[in-house]
Amino acid sequence: MSDNKERELGTTLDIKLDSAGLLTAVAVDADTNEVLMVAFMNQASLEKTIATGKATYWSRSRQKFWVKGEESGHIQEVQELLVDCDQDAVVMKVRQQGSACHNGFRSCFYRKIAPGNNAAATKLEFVLQRQVDPASIYKK
Amino acid sequence: MSDNKERELGTTLDIKLDSAGLLTAVAVDADTNEVLMVAFMNQASLEKTIATGKATYWSRSRQKFWVKGEESGHIQEVQELLVDCDQDAVVMKVRQQGSACHNGFRSCFYRKIAPGNNAAATKLEFVLQRQVDPASIYKK
Repeated sequence: MSDNKERELGTTLDIKLDSAGLLTAVAVDADTNEVLMVAFMNQASLEKTIATGKATYWSRSRQKFWVKGEESGHIQEVQELLVDCDQDAVVMKVRQQGSACHNGFRSCFYRKIAPGNNAAATKLEFVLQRQVDPASIYKK
Repeated sequence: MSDNKERELGTTLDIKLDSAGLLTAVAVDADTNEVLMVAFMNQASLEKTIATGKATYWSRSRQKFWVKGEESGHIQEVQELLVDCDQDAVVMKVRQQGSACHNGFRSCFYRKIAPGNNAAATKLEFVLQRQVDPASIYKK
């Protein structure tokens, strides 16, 4: 096995950030594996997630740390943190308080793509029911 | 409900690409929901995925289309394609032929982060067994 292969299969945490200094973070339900949301972390938010056990992201749109649930109370308690082969993505198995999605759904992935005969006929169909009214979550 | 909220909850496919023209794509096992891999797509690879039913990515490192399994035979047959609230990420429920990971594991997420007393003591622990020897998959 080459040095490169050994490194790929190794036991050292050596996160590879993209050109914006970020890695992809996927939160899944610890019991069902259902994907709840996909967002980004920088090195510091990954370290904060490891240290606190609460999913902490980096908001690309707001350019700031974002402890999930800080405002809504819908925190994600990390049960297990997995890293992929090339160490540029993590999967967090979480216990989700409330709804993961700011639109009030259990998961952000509440619609499926239903292709039509052509691109213009492609539609989204809802696959989940809303759990809560977002207006009741966010006060601002 | 504001126009903005209606648009967020709408039934129109309107993908939001990042500054590099990409969206995040997560492949999960259609039966177990286990996350198999995380990669990227551009608009054309998403359309190709929808049209062919085979997961097709955009390789950031090689800057080219990448039909998963094209070389290895380890294709991903897409059973369902979900899009998230802000339409910058998709989840594909797939039937994976062979191993999703080029290192020969069922999933690219074959290691967990096991935090130590300090950052330097943090190690990776294997959570999956290899399915196949990568040398037997790739001829080049």
